[in-house]
Amino acid sequence: MIRHTVAFRLRHPSGSAEERSFLAEAESLAAIPGVERFEQLDQVSSKNAYAFGFSMEFADQAAYDGYNAHPVHVAFVRDRWVPEVEEFLELDYVPLGG
Amino acid sequence: MIRHTVAFRLRHPSGSAEERSFLAEAESLAAIPGVERFEQLDQVSSKNAYAFGFSMEFADQAAYDGYNAHPVHVAFVRDRWVPEVEEFLELDYVPLGG
Repeated sequence: MIRHTVAFRLRHPSGSAEERSFLAEAESLAAIPGVERFEQLDQVSSKNAYAFGFSMEFADQAAYDGYNAHPVHVAFVRDRWVPEVEEFLELDYVPLGG
Repeated sequence: MIRHTVAFRLRHPSGSAEERSFLAEAESLAAIPGVERFEQLDQVSSKNAYAFGFSMEFADQAAYDGYNAHPVHVAFVRDRWVPEVEEFLELDYVPLGG
């Protein structure tokens, strides 16, 4: 299992229609083959400047690679992520020693 | 639900006895009342410099506060975390709009 996570902050004002549109379109990522346990999250710690998080799990690296190359993911990154995300950090986890 | 996560890197060499000792003692955090779904993780993305992650969930803020104040947590932070962790980032998540 590989858990792919990204913490991020949008260029849009909090609560704006643009923010809602971004998050709604991101739901399309959940339907990409190989994506399991897709979650959209609010980041609530005051110890960092990120506002949101996405988390998803893949069975193995092949499933993760398939997601990265999938047209829906490629289009989302190009059309929404790059222009609308102010700052982000990707963290990928596997079980310790696994 | 509040998911408390921390990504971190130790001062110890990878694979060292000191690293194993730190991770073994961190297991004691899982037994603190209120801690659910405690996980120790390897951080495997090359897009950041963190080596490990811990993740745990709390039913609510009261459970999270109880963990922070618990003597086992306070002692772990004082005796192991502060002296042995090189760099870390805390990210806390709740379900979007929840």
